[in-house]
Amino acid sequence: MNTHTLSLDLGDRSYPILIGKALLRQEGLLSPYLGGDGILIVTNETIGPLYLDTVTALLAGRKADHIILPDGEQYKNLETLNLIFSRLLECSHNRDTTLIALGGGVIGDMTGFAAACYQRGVDFIQIPTTLLAQVDSSVGGKTAVNHALGKNMIGAFHQPKAVLIDIETLETLPEREYRAGLAEVIKYGLIIDDEFFCWLEEHASELLGRQEQALSHAIEVSCRLKAKVVSADEREGGIRAILNLGHTFGHAIETQQGYNDWLHGEAVAAGMVMAARMSQRLGWLPEPEVARIESLVTSLGLPCRAPENIGSETYLEHMSVDKKARGGKIRLVLLKAIGEAVVTADYPQGDLVAVLNQASI
Amino acid sequence: MNTHTLSLDLGDRSYPILIGKALLRQEGLLSPYLGGDGILIVTNETIGPLYLDTVTALLAGRKADHIILPDGEQYKNLETLNLIFSRLLECSHNRDTTLIALGGGVIGDMTGFAAACYQRGVDFIQIPTTLLAQVDSSVGGKTAVNHALGKNMIGAFHQPKAVLIDIETLETLPEREYRAGLAEVIKYGLIIDDEFFCWLEEHASELLGRQEQALSHAIEVSCRLKAKVVSADEREGGIRAILNLGHTFGHAIETQQGYNDWLHGEAVAAGMVMAARMSQRLGWLPEPEVARIESLVTSLGLPCRAPENIGSETYLEHMSVDKKARGGKIRLVLLKAIGEAVVTADYPQGDLVAVLNQASI
Repeated sequence: MNTHTLSLDLGDRSYPILIGKALLRQEGLLSPYLGGDGILIVTNETIGPLYLDTVTALLAGRKADHIILPDGEQYKNLETLNLIFSRLLECSHNRDTTLIALGGGVIGDMTGFAAACYQRGVDFIQIPTTLLAQVDSSVGGKTAVNHALGKNMIGAFHQPKAVLIDIETLETLPEREYRAGLAEVIKYGLIIDDEFFCWLEEHASELLGRQEQALSHAIEVSCRLKAKVVSADEREGGIRAILNLGHTFGHAIETQQGYNDWLHGEAVAAGMVMAARMSQRLGWLPEPEVARIESLVTSLGLPCRAPENIGSETYLEHMSVDKKARGGKIRLVLLKAIGEAVVTADYPQGDLVAVLNQASI
Repeated sequence: MNTHTLSLDLGDRSYPILIGKALLRQEGLLSPYLGGDGILIVTNETIGPLYLDTVTALLAGRKADHIILPDGEQYKNLETLNLIFSRLLECSHNRDTTLIALGGGVIGDMTGFAAACYQRGVDFIQIPTTLLAQVDSSVGGKTAVNHALGKNMIGAFHQPKAVLIDIETLETLPEREYRAGLAEVIKYGLIIDDEFFCWLEEHASELLGRQEQALSHAIEVSCRLKAKVVSADEREGGIRAILNLGHTFGHAIETQQGYNDWLHGEAVAAGMVMAARMSQRLGWLPEPEVARIESLVTSLGLPCRAPENIGSETYLEHMSVDKKARGGKIRLVLLKAIGEAVVTADYPQGDLVAVLNQASI
């Protein structure tokens, strides 16, 4: 069992990211990251039956409570969050407790936010079981729930004590969700590492086939790139915003579709293509580079086109409440080149409207 | 118009506390503390009609949205919090917005927590209009809402950009709420400043009569003492816990009574007397000193006795989920002397049970 350990450097909030196969069968794995006595494992109806016993066995006899939430982005809201608080209080958990997020991005975001708020802040550990959570949402301390009027609008920056990524858990991940996770992997190449983008082009079929070595490499590089960006700008005052490539567009798609029809990664994939087209309009990205991006997105089984029912006005409405909007003007993450993202609000509005109107074509 | 400015020193999170009469009529008062364009004033049905126009006039023509919440501790919950988020999103507020809390402790706690969570953190300003909020809850960055199973169980540490205390707003404060605020004033004397306690004994009747000079002095000293404790321990890792004198007992009373029958300050007053009795049992506080405390509490129109319907088991149940509980043992704030508080879990359980059972006698 070959385990790689990365580190997210944030002073006294630094933590390790452990990546390996069958990590969740390593006895004592969790012990170094558990503070006080209390433990609450938060998972969902899909993941609980698969891995709850495995994780409980890692606690070396320590008592843990658990809560099993319904599965799905539509449950990522204050109401479900309150179920976690109720469980913590029913079991008399105090400030020394540790929450363990066992599941995908929704479980990680909600558990992290619950940990940020419970008694004004307790520890938590991320055990992501989807590719999207492993390469993106479990790393970096962004936690949130959705509001009916916008995605991730209510949340906190709250760093975990550790992130434990067991590649083996991906064996139970449905194909569509697996592909959705690859969208965030592509993102890292696009925003900050053109060599990684080339590597992805060369290894697309191995990745689609979940070939262990390629998958392990993709996860490791993704986490390393994310850790690098986050450690430079923990609270998204500047550079961290490039991690939102495709997300401002993507969130608008998700909000309009009600978080159900489109998976987050699928919306981000279409959103990244929209960002690429906008970059092309501004004269930054030549057409062949846009074609490379569309080609990689397509070859990894992800959509290049947005849904047809969204007009530019609807997009702009959703995008203007997005976190990336500042001072009234919508800030976009665009590409100067493959491997070089910029954040800008300096563009002709007409170009944005044109890109939005052509997004489904 | 005589304005005093104190400072809460917390590095880059430092902020001023302005105290004065008719402060809310000083033009341009708010300008230095407003960042971006957006402003949302959060107030309630009682305070809104009295001061919303006054505060709006302070914005020097800048556009502000507002939301008027129902008045009362029973509304300090996630459901009401969500009304604030909805309003922010309906009005397309982004990360650069500033929330203004105009009201008592409930409004301040909810507005501060909403600011902590909205888009993972925006600015806010405290304009406390009750004595309790002016001397205690508006200073120090503790924000929270209640859960059905415990008070202030869901919250965040989030410091305001400024606290603006206009003593004139107390003229509209009902007598019972005014007295409840005096409980927290007594607290500062008890935990950290025996001279201030003596001063309170000497000026009890002026304070009860809301005599301006005495009131102004009491608020200023209270804020200075609170700022001193908070700047030494922002996130309550140690010394800050002494600010909870009477609160662990008091919260149990409030939880049991459903936050309605007893005002927070009244529960804290009875709770401080319980803490004094416990301190006496441990041999720390002589009987005459306990009598002085009871005498001051009584002379300021506050209860020394807890409600009759709470037995020790009910107390212990509520107290064990309280934030002050650590590692299973309930930590209590007790008094070594008037002006000297300690936090301890080192006491015979039988003494605590005896104090709880005799609290209403």
